[in-house]
Amino acid sequence: MNLTAEIALAHRLADAAREAIRPYFRTPVDAERKGDATPVTIADRSAEEAMRRILTAEVPQDGIHGEEFGVSEGRSGRQWVLDPVDGTCAFLAGRATFGTLIALLVDGFPVLGVIDQPILGERWLGVAGQPTTLNGQPVTARACRQLSDATIATTGPQYFTHEEGDQFMALAQKTDHKRMVMGGDCYNYALLATGFVDVVCESGLKLHDFAALVPVVEGAGGLMCDWNGEPLHAGSDGHVLAIGDPARLEDVLEALGG
Amino acid sequence: MNLTAEIALAHRLADAAREAIRPYFRTPVDAERKGDATPVTIADRSAEEAMRRILTAEVPQDGIHGEEFGVSEGRSGRQWVLDPVDGTCAFLAGRATFGTLIALLVDGFPVLGVIDQPILGERWLGVAGQPTTLNGQPVTARACRQLSDATIATTGPQYFTHEEGDQFMALAQKTDHKRMVMGGDCYNYALLATGFVDVVCESGLKLHDFAALVPVVEGAGGLMCDWNGEPLHAGSDGHVLAIGDPARLEDVLEALGG
Repeated sequence: MNLTAEIALAHRLADAAREAIRPYFRTPVDAERKGDATPVTIADRSAEEAMRRILTAEVPQDGIHGEEFGVSEGRSGRQWVLDPVDGTCAFLAGRATFGTLIALLVDGFPVLGVIDQPILGERWLGVAGQPTTLNGQPVTARACRQLSDATIATTGPQYFTHEEGDQFMALAQKTDHKRMVMGGDCYNYALLATGFVDVVCESGLKLHDFAALVPVVEGAGGLMCDWNGEPLHAGSDGHVLAIGDPARLEDVLEALGG
Repeated sequence: MNLTAEIALAHRLADAAREAIRPYFRTPVDAERKGDATPVTIADRSAEEAMRRILTAEVPQDGIHGEEFGVSEGRSGRQWVLDPVDGTCAFLAGRATFGTLIALLVDGFPVLGVIDQPILGERWLGVAGQPTTLNGQPVTARACRQLSDATIATTGPQYFTHEEGDQFMALAQKTDHKRMVMGGDCYNYALLATGFVDVVCESGLKLHDFAALVPVVEGAGGLMCDWNGEPLHAGSDGHVLAIGDPARLEDVLEALGG
């Protein structure tokens, strides 16, 4: 699959989102509430609108699935999945660890993904069959000889149910848990793809939260799957694992008790 | 107290730590283990050595209390308290949310504090009786009309005992917990002093972890104390609260069940 045009388009989308988001960072923006009481801001909305405008003008045949403005059906079998600000809580708290997520799905499977950090100017690009890059330079996940050497990351225990939290803790205890890091949202997956985190384990993720991560992690030599080891796709249930060294997959699944 | 010379010295210390740390960020540094199994790297050690060299040369009469190289007694009643990398786990994971902490204690109480983020070039300076600054520009903590509006932050539940975790959760549930953020180390206190976080609640902090935070938070109009509302000093027990709006102190203490 030649995705040259789609890669260029994804860069323009990320550029537009950056421009929309940057003026609001570390300003006192209002946080409105969505149906699930999670916050949303003018930065989320402006960035998604900017990206949708470009897609509607340039690829009207493609579908759009955005976190804030829902689904526009396409007729090409291709869908752009957008999360304008993944990590709205981090954004509101003034931390430059949130990201804009852009994915292209073909027949429900992600073939292109962008994780963009608008404040630091960091852009990870993953494309099926190509090496992942950070600002144009190839990056790779690192080897992890045993699970007890692994650095594990998760955004926070507040996103787990009680049972999921127990499973996560069972896994975390078998990693190098003195190096565990909390917080981070999509940035954890970007850092895994760059060789500084070994395992990310989360639940409750929606398609717009995980679609872009898959090509970024896999193009860096890592592996993404659900808590049963199954590949992620549009119908996945939101239990997400990223593993930098695929040789540790069985150890991780066993520790999770899946 | 005129601290002009001490402020200039603190900047030179922070500059030296930056220079020592930056070359190691996002490189595959070894993480050795300290007695408590927490990681330490060449970046921690090099930065503390660089700062101690300056202090020994310029203010040999002052004491030094550093995280990595311990206490050198002084004879002036003044002590420099150094944490070269607060947030070593974040540093190792490639996140620019760690910080170098520098405090000057006079008779055991912090009168000057620096929180420096070497990668982003952000430096918060707090001095008793003066407005806190971020890169020279004044910053202030924000008002918080009710605890249910508060954004709470903590580095991670793994640092609490079971009982402390229950107390933290009792407090967190009374805040705007859908906006809670995990991770962050000293950076949470810097963001509180800048008006983007309302409450930070942690335990197990040592003098080098909290001394520098006090002048930064208090010079921004916030308040720091232990979980009983007592001021922090060299003998505090490591239960630390930062509250952006001092009017919420009683609400926070009551929610903690202290």
